Amino acid sequence: MSERLLTEEILEVLRKAPSVALFSHVSPDGDCLGSMLALGLALETMGKKVTFFNPDRVPMALAFLPGSDRIRQTLPDPRPQVLVFVDCTDLRRVSLTSDYFGDSIIINIDHHISNQKFGHYNWINDQASACAEICLTLLKQLGIALNREIATNLYTGIVTDSGCFQYSNTTAHTHRLTAELIETGLDLASIHYQLFDQKPLAQVKLLQAALNSLELYADGQLAVMTLTLENFRQSGADQELSEGLVNHARSIKGVEVAVLLKEVGAQEIKSGFRSNVWFDVNKAASQFGGGGHKRAAGCTFKVSLIEAKQQVISVIEEGLILGRHR
Amino acid sequence: MSERLLTEEILEVLRKAPSVALFSHVSPDGDCLGSMLALGLALETMGKKVTFFNPDRVPMALAFLPGSDRIRQTLPDPRPQVLVFVDCTDLRRVSLTSDYFGDSIIINIDHHISNQKFGHYNWINDQASACAEICLTLLKQLGIALNREIATNLYTGIVTDSGCFQYSNTTAHTHRLTAELIETGLDLASIHYQLFDQKPLAQVKLLQAALNSLELYADGQLAVMTLTLENFRQSGADQELSEGLVNHARSIKGVEVAVLLKEVGAQEIKSGFRSNVWFDVNKAASQFGGGGHKRAAGCTFKVSLIEAKQQVISVIEEGLILGRHR
Repeated sequence: MSERLLTEEILEVLRKAPSVALFSHVSPDGDCLGSMLALGLALETMGKKVTFFNPDRVPMALAFLPGSDRIRQTLPDPRPQVLVFVDCTDLRRVSLTSDYFGDSIIINIDHHISNQKFGHYNWINDQASACAEICLTLLKQLGIALNREIATNLYTGIVTDSGCFQYSNTTAHTHRLTAELIETGLDLASIHYQLFDQKPLAQVKLLQAALNSLELYADGQLAVMTLTLENFRQSGADQELSEGLVNHARSIKGVEVAVLLKEVGAQEIKSGFRSNVWFDVNKAASQFGGGGHKRAAGCTFKVSLIEAKQQVISVIEEGLILGRHR
Repeated sequence: MSERLLTEEILEVLRKAPSVALFSHVSPDGDCLGSMLALGLALETMGKKVTFFNPDRVPMALAFLPGSDRIRQTLPDPRPQVLVFVDCTDLRRVSLTSDYFGDSIIINIDHHISNQKFGHYNWINDQASACAEICLTLLKQLGIALNREIATNLYTGIVTDSGCFQYSNTTAHTHRLTAELIETGLDLASIHYQLFDQKPLAQVKLLQAALNSLELYADGQLAVMTLTLENFRQSGADQELSEGLVNHARSIKGVEVAVLLKEVGAQEIKSGFRSNVWFDVNKAASQFGGGGHKRAAGCTFKVSLIEAKQQVISVIEEGLILGRHR
């Protein structure tokens, strides 16, 4: 089906539906919640009955999103005729199986190339920096006037999934859509404060512990940080708060590969690998039974932290020095 | 003079000039260098002879800017008929006095509200997120086709001065101009890597030391970090690299005021104050003979680090608890 035809059919289904349920993925982030809420609030302005579902609770940092207090962890009952999934590559991401669908019409909106196309209508655009970009395009085609509540949700989706417009998925189109959102009168200072300036103290303590463990190898091309169970306990941080810490090591001048090793249990070490320019960390991680992408990968070790660290250093240092894993 | 008339006169002066010298400010940043280089490279496509001046050397992190190798620390001789100053609030910012001007025509392009309007033509727009925004408008009006070299310089100006589109000076117009720049085929990944992922190890070590000193007061509303002379010595960092560190303290949930105290000499302490929502740090800093803005200010103490810290905590804690300094 051509994209235009697909879009028109989706618009038609949504226009006709008296009630719509929206679904977003586990461990919710700014893009899945922002996309879901924006779409739902917009459909309500068309007089639809709308319900919001997420398997997990809304994270504190995203509780400012307009409409977020209406997201439920129980499935809508009765099940509406139209179910819309946003930012979900597959049904496991939303803790469901297709048994739930019954005779409902499934619309699947996503920007992940790996999307499993589980819907009757699948609008997948992997060129979009965020699912919110696709949702904004959809709303414009539905002829819905943007308001601040809808725009706040969509902006949050874009700014979080594009890494403040820094990730490689950011395009000229991303910036133009953002301009339209800002023109609704967005309170950017407040959104940025909620998103980026409300870090739990535990997260900063975890960064402190990670930096205190920082070591360089391979003439400064490899940076390794470790977090022990004790570090998590002392900082009061859970695993989730270590997200992104590895970038502090990756961004050091001269570093090509950065590794964060986290002790998550006895003889259980989770690792995250990042590279900057040429080293394929997916290949390195696959040597330890893990994987991912060229510039971001990971694996789990069933050994001690010290042993995992030695293995990682040995493999990556050799790769860096011999110029392997390109 | 109306803005339109002013713009037209500036265009006319530039069109007629056979040679132009461009000037940018001391301690050069991405916006002043990017603006100057973009303007100069564009004028060259019109067949002008162009020279670039900055009192200081180009920082390593900005050496990737196209044309940056042509910036000189010596004044152009002979002095061209047209001199263009970018991003300079006054002539001290470029280590000059008006004695230098002779009978040259001075064009002054800036986005600082405090600009001293020292030129014959002063294009000051304090609504622009970066001087590069104004320069792009100028280039479009000159009818110059953007190329990647020009766009790389302008994008760098915008992305650095807008804090990756996070500062409050970012507008819908900023994003639309950015879209135009990206469409020239900018290598965003490479620009971001050069700007943000080439941190000196010394800077990361300084962050480590700052975090190790972090203390909270006033029920977590005040975060204080200190850097000793020994911290600077051990990390190998100079003062400049402590720029921005205070934001790690400011962004902690619950913190209203963050302070970084730096020992820069015996009995000489430089301090930076930041606030998030309501506390006027300008008022607090002025109690110590310093000043700045409501949300960012600073002062210098002629006492020991311990004493300066005690004074700061005492004044700010009281202000926070009594709700003063709004």
